[in-house]
Amino acid sequence: MRVALGLEYCGTGFRGWQSQAQGKTVQDSLEFALQAIAGRKVGVVCAGRTDAGVHASQQVVHFDTPVERPLTAWVRGVNSHLPEGVAVRWAQPVSDEFHARFSARGRRYRYLLLNRPQRPGLWQGRVGWFHGALDLALMQDAAGRLLGEHDFSAFRAAECQAKTPVKTLSRAEVRQCGGMFVFDFEATAFLHHMVRNLVGTLVYIGKGAQPPGWVDELLLARDRKLAAPTFSPDGLYFRGPLYEPQWALPDPDDDFLDGMLK
Amino acid sequence: MRVALGLEYCGTGFRGWQSQAQGKTVQDSLEFALQAIAGRKVGVVCAGRTDAGVHASQQVVHFDTPVERPLTAWVRGVNSHLPEGVAVRWAQPVSDEFHARFSARGRRYRYLLLNRPQRPGLWQGRVGWFHGALDLALMQDAAGRLLGEHDFSAFRAAECQAKTPVKTLSRAEVRQCGGMFVFDFEATAFLHHMVRNLVGTLVYIGKGAQPPGWVDELLLARDRKLAAPTFSPDGLYFRGPLYEPQWALPDPDDDFLDGMLK
Repeated sequence: MRVALGLEYCGTGFRGWQSQAQGKTVQDSLEFALQAIAGRKVGVVCAGRTDAGVHASQQVVHFDTPVERPLTAWVRGVNSHLPEGVAVRWAQPVSDEFHARFSARGRRYRYLLLNRPQRPGLWQGRVGWFHGALDLALMQDAAGRLLGEHDFSAFRAAECQAKTPVKTLSRAEVRQCGGMFVFDFEATAFLHHMVRNLVGTLVYIGKGAQPPGWVDELLLARDRKLAAPTFSPDGLYFRGPLYEPQWALPDPDDDFLDGMLK
Repeated sequence: MRVALGLEYCGTGFRGWQSQAQGKTVQDSLEFALQAIAGRKVGVVCAGRTDAGVHASQQVVHFDTPVERPLTAWVRGVNSHLPEGVAVRWAQPVSDEFHARFSARGRRYRYLLLNRPQRPGLWQGRVGWFHGALDLALMQDAAGRLLGEHDFSAFRAAECQAKTPVKTLSRAEVRQCGGMFVFDFEATAFLHHMVRNLVGTLVYIGKGAQPPGWVDELLLARDRKLAAPTFSPDGLYFRGPLYEPQWALPDPDDDFLDGMLK
């Protein structure tokens, strides 16, 4: 049978999602915990791989297993074998046609950027940081120019394995909450480092180093070297994939990011 | 000259505020960093000591030093010597009559309690957790009974060094934001473990184990053994002391707790 799981994690202290020989990745931790419950090896497929230091308020995975366990075993049982900083929130049986990655019709990311002269202390590891003044209106103007279908090669990491750099961004918003800038992005799919590269470029524009129209130039030039550097992983949250209603999967709020950070 | 500093920290990974022979406390880290800037030993006095695992969005300290440094040295310079998870936000010269602890007219604490069946993952270490259903109205009723001047012996740790258990609580509020309960307390001063003990008792009432009137009984009985267990430090935030306007000290928002968590 095929089971879908929703989980959340703090990326600090993990070498990212994807399994590595050195271990210490979220996937390794999850597969270890699933094996403890299933009594045999379990391989998982996730909706969106995250880099080292990147967080997830909702990651979705699926796995196939011949063993039958009550759903609570896949949640509470697995949680008892997971390290601190990772927790399964829900488990649900799904048909074999469901695929955590290929069934996803969209993906959501949020970036939290602390904007003040002093580096983060209390929220260190959970927020990106920029010390200088940022102009919200300039960043909003620039973000709007990212919307729609574009070749995002200028915002693509060299090691990106996507088949095409053409993606459709359906949400690109910036707002300010106190000393924090909140960036929200939604697209069918993202290139490797794309959100961190977009934030880096928006910050360049926000500090006045380039005008908002720079975004149009970068999209046309399709050259990673022309855009701003990749921003820190610390403030990046994968807020989960979007699936068709037919799969009837839970999509819970993140209790902090969504419940409070309106 | 006497200097006041405002700082913030994540209590995870520290053995609390107060200096210890084994080190790894916030005070030790701060005094080490101040010594690096001053070129000599610097002893600090804080507004409110915090336990291991307890966070501060604003802690205030003062110290005396014969050396003159620009204020940026006491902020940016000190930050470059502080470990991750602690940051100075501001520095200000103050008169010798100012005392970080004795000049404080009030202190504020917030407790974040994640309420859901699954343990915290993403916000592990930053929130307390209760798995069962909680009734907001019952907790609000009980919290209101804590207001005013009382003998808080029922909520006082055995090792508490306060001269008197009689304190005046001017704020005791509970509200719900998504899956999070937010508890706010303000008093002239707090006993050792008082906020965590109050939260423990409010949770007992919220889950229906005791009625709101239990608070009245506990206050009268003044017996720690009758009240609920001390709640986890993970969700506790010291939001800072309150001083008379004459000192003209900064009181910045916490960019996450205050700026977003309205």
